[in-house]
Amino acid sequence: MAEAVDLKVVGSRPVRPDGADKVTGRAQYGADINLPNMIYGRVLRSTVAHARIKSIDTSAALKIPGVLAVVTGADFPQAESGEIGGEGGGDVADVAQNVMARNKVLYHGHAVAAVAAKSQSIAEAALAAIKVEYEKLPLVLDILEAMKPDAPLLNPNCFTKGLSEKQTKPSNIASVMTLARGNLDEGFAAADIIHESEHVIPMAHQGYIEPHACTATINEAGQATVWLCTQGHFDTRAQTAKILGCSVADLRFIATEIGGGFGGKTVVYLEPVAILLARKSGRPVKMIMTREEVFRATGPTSGSIARIKVGVKKDGKITAAKCWIAMEAGAFAGAPCGPAAMAIFAPYTIENFKVEAFDVLNNKPKVAAYRAPGAPQSMHCMEVALNEVAHKLGMDPIDLRMVNAASEGTQAPYGPKFPVIGFKECLEAAKKHPNWTKPVPAGAGRGFAVGFWFNVGMQSSAEVHINDDGTVRVVEGSPDIGGSRASMCIMAAETLGVPYERVRALVGDTESTGFCNVTGGSRTTFATGMAVVRACEDVIAQCKNRAASTWGVDADQVEWKDGKVVPKPGVNADLKPLSLAEIAAKSARTGGPISGRASLNAQGAGASFACNIVDLAVDKETGKVDVLSFTAIQDAGRAIHPAYVEGQYQGGAAQGIGWALNEEYIFNKDGVMENAGFLDYRMPVASDLPMIDTQIIEVPNPSHPYGVRGVGETGIVAPLAACSNAMRNAVGFLIPDLPLSPPRVLAAIEANG
Amino acid sequence: MAEAVDLKVVGSRPVRPDGADKVTGRAQYGADINLPNMIYGRVLRSTVAHARIKSIDTSAALKIPGVLAVVTGADFPQAESGEIGGEGGGDVADVAQNVMARNKVLYHGHAVAAVAAKSQSIAEAALAAIKVEYEKLPLVLDILEAMKPDAPLLNPNCFTKGLSEKQTKPSNIASVMTLARGNLDEGFAAADIIHESEHVIPMAHQGYIEPHACTATINEAGQATVWLCTQGHFDTRAQTAKILGCSVADLRFIATEIGGGFGGKTVVYLEPVAILLARKSGRPVKMIMTREEVFRATGPTSGSIARIKVGVKKDGKITAAKCWIAMEAGAFAGAPCGPAAMAIFAPYTIENFKVEAFDVLNNKPKVAAYRAPGAPQSMHCMEVALNEVAHKLGMDPIDLRMVNAASEGTQAPYGPKFPVIGFKECLEAAKKHPNWTKPVPAGAGRGFAVGFWFNVGMQSSAEVHINDDGTVRVVEGSPDIGGSRASMCIMAAETLGVPYERVRALVGDTESTGFCNVTGGSRTTFATGMAVVRACEDVIAQCKNRAASTWGVDADQVEWKDGKVVPKPGVNADLKPLSLAEIAAKSARTGGPISGRASLNAQGAGASFACNIVDLAVDKETGKVDVLSFTAIQDAGRAIHPAYVEGQYQGGAAQGIGWALNEEYIFNKDGVMENAGFLDYRMPVASDLPMIDTQIIEVPNPSHPYGVRGVGETGIVAPLAACSNAMRNAVGFLIPDLPLSPPRVLAAIEANG
Repeated sequence: MAEAVDLKVVGSRPVRPDGADKVTGRAQYGADINLPNMIYGRVLRSTVAHARIKSIDTSAALKIPGVLAVVTGADFPQAESGEIGGEGGGDVADVAQNVMARNKVLYHGHAVAAVAAKSQSIAEAALAAIKVEYEKLPLVLDILEAMKPDAPLLNPNCFTKGLSEKQTKPSNIASVMTLARGNLDEGFAAADIIHESEHVIPMAHQGYIEPHACTATINEAGQATVWLCTQGHFDTRAQTAKILGCSVADLRFIATEIGGGFGGKTVVYLEPVAILLARKSGRPVKMIMTREEVFRATGPTSGSIARIKVGVKKDGKITAAKCWIAMEAGAFAGAPCGPAAMAIFAPYTIENFKVEAFDVLNNKPKVAAYRAPGAPQSMHCMEVALNEVAHKLGMDPIDLRMVNAASEGTQAPYGPKFPVIGFKECLEAAKKHPNWTKPVPAGAGRGFAVGFWFNVGMQSSAEVHINDDGTVRVVEGSPDIGGSRASMCIMAAETLGVPYERVRALVGDTESTGFCNVTGGSRTTFATGMAVVRACEDVIAQCKNRAASTWGVDADQVEWKDGKVVPKPGVNADLKPLSLAEIAAKSARTGGPISGRASLNAQGAGASFACNIVDLAVDKETGKVDVLSFTAIQDAGRAIHPAYVEGQYQGGAAQGIGWALNEEYIFNKDGVMENAGFLDYRMPVASDLPMIDTQIIEVPNPSHPYGVRGVGETGIVAPLAACSNAMRNAVGFLIPDLPLSPPRVLAAIEANG
Repeated sequence: MAEAVDLKVVGSRPVRPDGADKVTGRAQYGADINLPNMIYGRVLRSTVAHARIKSIDTSAALKIPGVLAVVTGADFPQAESGEIGGEGGGDVADVAQNVMARNKVLYHGHAVAAVAAKSQSIAEAALAAIKVEYEKLPLVLDILEAMKPDAPLLNPNCFTKGLSEKQTKPSNIASVMTLARGNLDEGFAAADIIHESEHVIPMAHQGYIEPHACTATINEAGQATVWLCTQGHFDTRAQTAKILGCSVADLRFIATEIGGGFGGKTVVYLEPVAILLARKSGRPVKMIMTREEVFRATGPTSGSIARIKVGVKKDGKITAAKCWIAMEAGAFAGAPCGPAAMAIFAPYTIENFKVEAFDVLNNKPKVAAYRAPGAPQSMHCMEVALNEVAHKLGMDPIDLRMVNAASEGTQAPYGPKFPVIGFKECLEAAKKHPNWTKPVPAGAGRGFAVGFWFNVGMQSSAEVHINDDGTVRVVEGSPDIGGSRASMCIMAAETLGVPYERVRALVGDTESTGFCNVTGGSRTTFATGMAVVRACEDVIAQCKNRAASTWGVDADQVEWKDGKVVPKPGVNADLKPLSLAEIAAKSARTGGPISGRASLNAQGAGASFACNIVDLAVDKETGKVDVLSFTAIQDAGRAIHPAYVEGQYQGGAAQGIGWALNEEYIFNKDGVMENAGFLDYRMPVASDLPMIDTQIIEVPNPSHPYGVRGVGETGIVAPLAACSNAMRNAVGFLIPDLPLSPPRVLAAIEANG
């Protein structure tokens, strides 16, 4: 791994290449693709939350002039059950049924048919003309209700997985994830203090500003080209191929710019529908969701109910911890129970623990990944519990964490031993931070909490092409969400020893670059970055061979130094070092164009830890909460482009604060979301937030050539508990549930006198 | 090189992947790109053939509502003189001035200004409103006139290159190319028969059905994306960058489908103009030439005047040959004198020869490459001369060639010794061909001639990506003109051992694949094909490593056989062979995605020879000529997709016949082309031609993994002389000049009684 002192480009803050086009409106997002003869697709959505579809009559819709195609579940092949890997994956058959209901609708908003017409208004008229007969079924919305043996069943073929005995009675509990170590009874017996509490967190949406959109066109051979806003065009292509029963070779997916995803754009909703409509109509079909559709029918993250029990010695040492958490999956299995269970105790060295996490079906939209999926919900209860324990012990909450903090060599609760991690460095930085040491403003409460995310590697590819003027083109397949093109250019420039301005990065489509998994799991700068560096090293190897050949020496007599091929010490010292540009200028005569490539399944994504400090002021008459200051301290391994790392910290904090204070899905008894719009679903706007203070901790990840750890997800984890803990310190008692919205805060203040 | 007997896919005739889209109109050609807010660019062209531009007043044009930008030569940077490599190259400063005149116009149709407006009609009105003041200069159109010392000069800085003494007096003769060997005087002295004749061939146009078209858009950073119909988006990008004084990294060139090029779409005309108009207007700009503009202002090939002298022994052995040929370059240097001089005697073993070829400026459009540039003109006179010699000797014209035929080891007139070539095989096939052995139809004449083309290698790159379902994506940068995507898929399928249907080829744009020179020089199937094969071999190497690793054996213990990795004999025989699809399915677990790449400057393009047999009937009352039969016999090395090889033979023949019989640029005394449209410029249509018979000779090229030689160009070379020779045999005397159009034929018949 490169030493910090040697870095020339990594750590600088150049302007991102896509910036100007994005702020001027020139960049093309999902809805911005327009093709000749294009028509518009719209989806008819279920008006009931649980029902058998008795019939769908599309005949009147098809008679409307300008309506060119209608599809229903009957137009789709029977998708075979089977896993699609990666974030955004799950069971193909489930994804397929979520894309278009077959015999049953499982939530209000579930797609039941789609039309394509010459205008949006004709398409809407066609939707209104489709007659669907439903046979209503009893529905279940509450998690605990859904877990009961006699609850209305969403899926009669769902048998709980993860239990020691094979289940024969169907259940809404899709699976149970259990992690345990040591002896709980002994652990709790050894404790001086035991804290127990229960916490309910509602469903929340990622709230990306850009609704899902795609445009599909089919050629005469039946092959489709689809432009879509996605976190991963290769993975969504794979899902679409499985749903449509075709080969990925018949689908070309082109990622447009993306207006946010946060995990929610790893899943397909419209793409298979648009392809079928294009196939039926022979026209390009554009589909754009409304905001209401995004809320009702795309994946929010799971609501949860969690029960935590923590035993601690007087010195702060945790002797035992236990968590029971049930997470709602919505209509199809897939709540993030695994990461929830694996993350909750990850920051700490705990000898005796147990976590049980339940994946529970109910009549709500199918959940999707949301930034560090599962961790915010589970870690909320642990971090709140530790705050309560600190209070009881009269101990500084940071000191309490430090006593128990995991470090290199600690066996993580989910198995492996941690390599070098930066948790203690984050705690130390927090302890010293002026926002921690300064007095708490009068009437406010200060909260502290810890966040964690695993980060993942997964598959990435990159190609690096050298122009004959020495400029560099990087091609890779990770949609750029947070500035990754800039980061790729920085790493390529650093590796090749050329200025940043001479490197351009392209997000290639599925036909023109090697396979890349989704931009998710905080993997892009780590894994795709590693592929870019390896591809640059392939270029360097070729440059060395060519320079050696030009000089008439053996390839092992030269080396790469400061962006140039130089003769090794002892070899002919008269040879003038050759830069990339000099070698490129002569490439035609030394073997042709210079291109490098790398593909890998990246291993060693370094776990990332964060500490949050928040000051909240509470208006005790209205329950309104003001965020006075917020500090996000997080280990980035090494920040390739510090401004975008800070942006990730700030974005994660803003989303975490929104979820903590106001965001929630509100359903009526019929399963209809009552706040499916940004006026009623209360995300924070600029005036709700202070400037988020950030501090980048750099404990380099030895598995990455520049020390990168993922930074995208960890930032959303701690704010939930940090806000709960600040609230507790502001009002003097724990409000266990989220969001800490004015009605809940006011009710709690009134209940506690 | 693979043995024919082992080939499973090479030599088959699958449907081309772009076929259905092309015949149904779905394929996107140069004019088919439409972008939001797009406007239309048009070029104002000189109304005089030689003049100084005194002033250009664009103020009235700019006042027309809907006119968004105007550019003139003053908007272009001063392009530095310097060579652009490759076919379509030449001096950058010349290309730049041809794109937009600076101080002088040099031919009727020369671009002097351009506008961009909201509609084509507004743009035309704007052109009409631009006032250009010309100071007329004397002009020169005739080649011999232009060569005179006192001729009006096109370029006062042009001093003849290629002479032993440096020239100090400017001239319209840009260069002289001389090739000589042996002793001409002795050679001619040893001859029994000497033939001398002079031949004039007029300018002819490539006549591609699709006019030049492009659409340019600029992002906020000033970087341009250009869609264009081109034979080479990398080379046209390089030209454009030099003309605009920017880096290639700031230009993304995307090749659309192309409706013919034949050498003429290797040059830029509109692209730099469209970029400047887009920059000035802030809008995407589309430009499409009219057919008239294509004729007046894009490159035809050179007209020529050639003097041939050949000395032959009674046994047919050529003792000496001499050729003087002057070729018109049009407004800027660049007539194809090099290949004309190098090709003329290439089929024959001649001890004493000399060729002098003159590149002559005159006030006509700048010539561009046209299928085997230069060879049809020069070889016409030699092949006609040999026909005359055969008559004088009473010798079969094929036998005459066989006596002198070059073969492996013959030193080519241009230097190197021929490796394995298929000339004698072509002659033998012609001699035996039923169209040669059958009686000549009454009243008709049968002609025979030989064609030759070097073929080139040049730079190509390819990437091959393996999908996890085992399907294969080939990405390369050679625009597909004659079915090269199908050929690339065939070679990839053959190399990887998968069915053709599982391979897809993409012509990547300049950002998404490695550098490739133009589709020209008959290099694509050879050089880009070689890159594809090498990239597949990169894939195979990775597959072997992964299989070996899976099996726990060393990589050198496995081999690739019949599309599978198998253990080498003697290694554990229980190991089940692994196909590409099986290895791909597990790629995530064996190191990530599988992608291969190759870049090369291909060496060893094998020269290609052809024999043509044509029967012509001449109507002695009108001079009209009917082509009764035409036979093209040509060495393909090995035909990857025989149907497309035959198509190349037929296309070359059709163009050669058109040039021989009717096509010509007709200028009036003011230098105005009088037949700038397809009604007056008489290209052959379907009813003018018989079915062209083809015979593929396969003498594999040992420098290519599948034995490929280029096939695109040789086919146009022999038809000119074959038609002249058939005419001679039909009418009984030589009509030396082309085209053999009714007026010329009738005049000759009348003159010869």
